[in-house]
Amino acid sequence: MYNQTAYELGTNGCIIRELGQYGDALAARIGKENVFNFCIGNPSLPTPKAVQEAFLDILQHTDSLALHSYTPAIGSLACRQAIADNLNQRFSANATADDLIIGCGAAPELAAVFHALAFPGSEILTVAPYFPEYKPLVEASGAAFRVVPAAAPDFQIPMAALEAMLTPNTAAVLLNSPNNPSGVVYTRKTLEALSRLLTRKGEEFGHPIYIVSDEPYRELAYGVEVPFVPGIYPNTIVCYSYSKSLSLPGERIGYVYIPKNAADAQALYHAVEGGFRATGHICAPSLLQAVIARCAHLTPDLTMYDKNRTTLYNALTEFGYQVAKPDGAFYLFVKAPGGNAMAFVEKAKEQGLLVVPGDDFGCPEYFRMCYCVSHDQILRSLPIFRRLAK
Amino acid sequence: MYNQTAYELGTNGCIIRELGQYGDALAARIGKENVFNFCIGNPSLPTPKAVQEAFLDILQHTDSLALHSYTPAIGSLACRQAIADNLNQRFSANATADDLIIGCGAAPELAAVFHALAFPGSEILTVAPYFPEYKPLVEASGAAFRVVPAAAPDFQIPMAALEAMLTPNTAAVLLNSPNNPSGVVYTRKTLEALSRLLTRKGEEFGHPIYIVSDEPYRELAYGVEVPFVPGIYPNTIVCYSYSKSLSLPGERIGYVYIPKNAADAQALYHAVEGGFRATGHICAPSLLQAVIARCAHLTPDLTMYDKNRTTLYNALTEFGYQVAKPDGAFYLFVKAPGGNAMAFVEKAKEQGLLVVPGDDFGCPEYFRMCYCVSHDQILRSLPIFRRLAK
Repeated sequence: MYNQTAYELGTNGCIIRELGQYGDALAARIGKENVFNFCIGNPSLPTPKAVQEAFLDILQHTDSLALHSYTPAIGSLACRQAIADNLNQRFSANATADDLIIGCGAAPELAAVFHALAFPGSEILTVAPYFPEYKPLVEASGAAFRVVPAAAPDFQIPMAALEAMLTPNTAAVLLNSPNNPSGVVYTRKTLEALSRLLTRKGEEFGHPIYIVSDEPYRELAYGVEVPFVPGIYPNTIVCYSYSKSLSLPGERIGYVYIPKNAADAQALYHAVEGGFRATGHICAPSLLQAVIARCAHLTPDLTMYDKNRTTLYNALTEFGYQVAKPDGAFYLFVKAPGGNAMAFVEKAKEQGLLVVPGDDFGCPEYFRMCYCVSHDQILRSLPIFRRLAK
Repeated sequence: MYNQTAYELGTNGCIIRELGQYGDALAARIGKENVFNFCIGNPSLPTPKAVQEAFLDILQHTDSLALHSYTPAIGSLACRQAIADNLNQRFSANATADDLIIGCGAAPELAAVFHALAFPGSEILTVAPYFPEYKPLVEASGAAFRVVPAAAPDFQIPMAALEAMLTPNTAAVLLNSPNNPSGVVYTRKTLEALSRLLTRKGEEFGHPIYIVSDEPYRELAYGVEVPFVPGIYPNTIVCYSYSKSLSLPGERIGYVYIPKNAADAQALYHAVEGGFRATGHICAPSLLQAVIARCAHLTPDLTMYDKNRTTLYNALTEFGYQVAKPDGAFYLFVKAPGGNAMAFVEKAKEQGLLVVPGDDFGCPEYFRMCYCVSHDQILRSLPIFRRLAK
């Protein structure tokens, strides 16, 4: 007597985790130096020194009772204010602390937002390739999960295909840019076209279609603009995480931003508060809030990621691979020679090379590589990629 | 276009928060020393020195990349092992790290467990008085929330009333002992009677009825035993939080324990994992896991709480109040003179005394007081209680 859906969620093998375990076992057998694991999106940059210092300074100089007490359910004013200031400085967002709710990372933030948006019969759309956890998070809210097919090779948003899937039941379109798994950044042109489409269809349906913008990779972009989505389409709810920008993936801290000029903004804010309550998520860890209150303005040094990206992208394209333009995040999305990623992944495993097939991302012809690894691992893996290209 | 239930959850005034705001406003008007706020269950003991030292030592001496990386979704092995060791030492629990999932405090743990237990048409029962957040957390899982009426004046579990409410749709009985709001600890005798009842009814229905034991106050007991529920009834899922035991309420860290000898234990464990995924809750903050790995064995010094408890309990009973026996937690549950807590609370407010009416806890004749305040506040409030008793 237990919930079958939850059971399946808990047992259904996550292929990334399985590959990780395979890699560990392989390393024990043939030596760590002979395994090239490109599966796990754990930042390989340490957190900035200023973050480390903030942790210590706060712990050493704040009254411990005050530091570790509950903050308000929506997060401390200091933390929300620092984030609002940062959004205003960078994007002229006109944000105030009242537009923000602090959350424990993007996943629970998305869960709360989907709970806030789902109505009976509603659908939430995303665009392939997409992060696989979106499906259980959307479905737990009661909404149906729909995927707009990917538009290879540039992986921008295919407007006609998206338009064909919009119905009066569409509650939201879920975007992730810079994208996991493709590394693609949606351009301003793409987002402006999307804004026009959603505005037109929203008027037709008589209700807004929200964009939910999942932005853990916002700060990881290499020389291209990552447009501020609410500045283009006000009916946007941003879910942010400091996991990648401050290299704090284990610490689970981020925010939901609901712009004041979104449709029904105030009611929506309360509904998101309610979504957080329903999922048991209130008052993000207070120490982490204190750290973010000091560090919200920091940006990562991307030199290392960029070097890895360039080396890999240049080599793989030289070997004949077709690779999505990796403008952001720390992923390359590569078309499998022969067009069957699962078969390619199996062949690669035999050579100690671990990459993730695109099936769970909605693109079974592609595989994903995380280049947040050592540069040395990349250089030593290139001969294998060259052999596998044939 | 937003979810109405979520909206109502986000807007429905939490009376505790409203009273808190009233208190702040009142303090600004008549002076902080003239406001006696007994509403908020924030620990007034600082976290033990060893916890503070663990935070600093870990931050100073652990590689920052490793420290802030994702742990496994279920939590780090070190943290789970430390908790298993502690359960074995104290309760001969026969627990292993594989029986535990680390969570971000009791609320998200309960959310995940309810998701794991709810089946179509299922009901989850609790016993009044109860923590009001149980209702939205249960209902978000799809199960119906049912309340067994309180058994004043001792507030143990009324077995006949509970039995009358058990049906083949009962998935679980949710307990909270030491209890918020009553401060009552369920005795071994009570739990043994419950175990017999649930065993008998489970056989009758042909499926186990689980106990979900919400235990944030386990370590806050004054000279009485807090029985280890899985030792009495194996079909028990424990949801624990270090908020009160280590005075870290803002940091949101705890665990779910599923004993190996619970019915369908392994499947249930996976279902709870699935529940965590569906609510967006995986990988509790890694720094806090590292702290708990070192501090799981620590216990709080209850001297201050106990002194407050004794002073208040003795004075209130002397003034003629009827008070539930406050063996645990940091709450007194007091019958309102006249039997209408809402009316009493209004009269008390006029004198600067803030207590919470029991309506939301399922006991409208009682009010709750948190005695995690300064002893001085308690002493100075006694004349008001004496006046109000009349």
